[in-house]
Amino acid sequence: MAYIYPNKTVILLRATLILLVAGLVAGCAHAPPTASVDPLPSWNAGAAKTSVFDFVRAVTTPGNPDFVPVAERIAVFDNDGTLWSEKPVYFQFMFAMDRIRALAPQHPQWKSQQPFKAVLENDMKSLAAAGEQGLIQILLAGHTGMTTEEFAETVTQWLATARHPRFQRPYTDLVFQPMLELLDYLRANGFKTFIVSGGGIEFMRPFTRKVYGIPPDQVVGSSLKTRFELRQGEPVLVRLPEIFFIDDKAGKPVGIHTFIGQRPIAAFGNSDGDLQMLQWSTAGPGRRLGLIVHHTDAVREWAYDRQSHVGKLDQALTQATQNGWSVVDMQTDWNVIYPFQK
Amino acid sequence: MAYIYPNKTVILLRATLILLVAGLVAGCAHAPPTASVDPLPSWNAGAAKTSVFDFVRAVTTPGNPDFVPVAERIAVFDNDGTLWSEKPVYFQFMFAMDRIRALAPQHPQWKSQQPFKAVLENDMKSLAAAGEQGLIQILLAGHTGMTTEEFAETVTQWLATARHPRFQRPYTDLVFQPMLELLDYLRANGFKTFIVSGGGIEFMRPFTRKVYGIPPDQVVGSSLKTRFELRQGEPVLVRLPEIFFIDDKAGKPVGIHTFIGQRPIAAFGNSDGDLQMLQWSTAGPGRRLGLIVHHTDAVREWAYDRQSHVGKLDQALTQATQNGWSVVDMQTDWNVIYPFQK
Repeated sequence: MAYIYPNKTVILLRATLILLVAGLVAGCAHAPPTASVDPLPSWNAGAAKTSVFDFVRAVTTPGNPDFVPVAERIAVFDNDGTLWSEKPVYFQFMFAMDRIRALAPQHPQWKSQQPFKAVLENDMKSLAAAGEQGLIQILLAGHTGMTTEEFAETVTQWLATARHPRFQRPYTDLVFQPMLELLDYLRANGFKTFIVSGGGIEFMRPFTRKVYGIPPDQVVGSSLKTRFELRQGEPVLVRLPEIFFIDDKAGKPVGIHTFIGQRPIAAFGNSDGDLQMLQWSTAGPGRRLGLIVHHTDAVREWAYDRQSHVGKLDQALTQATQNGWSVVDMQTDWNVIYPFQK
Repeated sequence: MAYIYPNKTVILLRATLILLVAGLVAGCAHAPPTASVDPLPSWNAGAAKTSVFDFVRAVTTPGNPDFVPVAERIAVFDNDGTLWSEKPVYFQFMFAMDRIRALAPQHPQWKSQQPFKAVLENDMKSLAAAGEQGLIQILLAGHTGMTTEEFAETVTQWLATARHPRFQRPYTDLVFQPMLELLDYLRANGFKTFIVSGGGIEFMRPFTRKVYGIPPDQVVGSSLKTRFELRQGEPVLVRLPEIFFIDDKAGKPVGIHTFIGQRPIAAFGNSDGDLQMLQWSTAGPGRRLGLIVHHTDAVREWAYDRQSHVGKLDQALTQATQNGWSVVDMQTDWNVIYPFQK
């Protein structure tokens, strides 16, 4: 029996086990991407992709002058137009209009009362004329009065059943495959990823974990006030028709500071609503990454920027050059838009 | 050379490496506590300790009817009186009074103006008479007008130099060793731990990671409004003398919902300020843990409850029994109070 394992076999056995051990040790930490596996396959080679790789390499390589400890690797992402599409209008507004339609039987006066009349008659011209105040009325009417748990359930139901008018698919199918890869890539490199959106925090939280891998406590957004109540001894939170916080434009750095409490080192946006978030995130000391998704693909998605009603990108596009922010040209930089097109 | 490794040696070598591999694999996952290592050594055997172990075992054991997935293992902790001491008054108020003293030369009128006069003369009776409005005035005077980064630096400086009047030690030394063990134990079992405090969010964030292992984005607290500004092109956030959110009493479930977005399955508090947080957290479906730290040790810490000015524990203590919340008797349940006494 002493001859069963000759020297060579023993050495091979040891080598195999040592490699196995080494592999397991490496497996415990975040594995860096190897040259042979592209972590961003939906991104074409180009300046935008290179800027992401260069940034991540610089801040994650020990000894690099730009190295950043894991605890400070905070990355913030706008949602509408950055992680998913936002046309014909913000998806939350599609939801809000569906809420008005669903609640109309209980509010017969809406048939003759703007802006509700416009929603019920699909009169987009009158709706546009109702302006921001009209939008807020529509949002408040269908979004308040219920408990927070009832509202979350309504959102979940809608996301499961509603279909996008152009693609005839669930809205959550219209997320950007390249951005899903970017989220995964950053997390694999020790980043904590947050959403910082002008959209409603309670509209996003029911789906962000499943769709983006982002848990509810890493979602910052606009919100309404809620009130704690005991109903027959059961504690509930009731949504009130009063705005608590608007997480847009100059509100985004405020939201980041209030909810996250650390200045991000990377920020991703697509519109002037993200300008101050990009300024705040990239002005800190050390190496930073600012990136703008420019919607340039009218065929596969939509093409719009300086003149658009939704997701207007004007000042932020102008400032991108002087601030060294990367700009994704959706048409040329992304070889896939949506996961279902892979 | 073929005889160098006789069979027995080879078998031992293999066994050792297999154990090593197995150990590394286990080390990647959260290691459950074994019977031989007590994860809560500063807790004496008793009902409170047992309730913690029973709860954690139930929610983390696959197949148990009370099993909870890692994503939903949210635990919330009050800070003042739950994670650290709060006598003679909340430590943030000690800081606020030191701010008034430091800023007094720039505000000569404070010498004759209450409540500032009371602070400068150490006149605790007049200070108490100034009531809540007086406290707010003191907090706002020393806490606003600067940028958020300047404020964080002031807090860090104060924590490094100020000494607690009774123990003559930094305030951050007065954290409860048993609660540090509890935080570690819960995290080792897949819980995400949050602070939900009535205290100022920007007063806590500079030290919570170092002291409690809780990062800034997992700290919920009261806050002031801030404003985004460009100062010579540099973006800053300026602290305004206006309250944004009070995270106390019925505000705690609201804060939990707004900042965390999930209902916790475990809540830890010590006063009536935590009552609604305990109600909200423990009323959800499935198994829940509510725990109250009862300050009963006048020798090693302080003894106070229903009549106390700071950290009043009255209604929550009464409701503990009917709601099945655990109550820690500090004197008998904890064999160590502060880490420096170990």
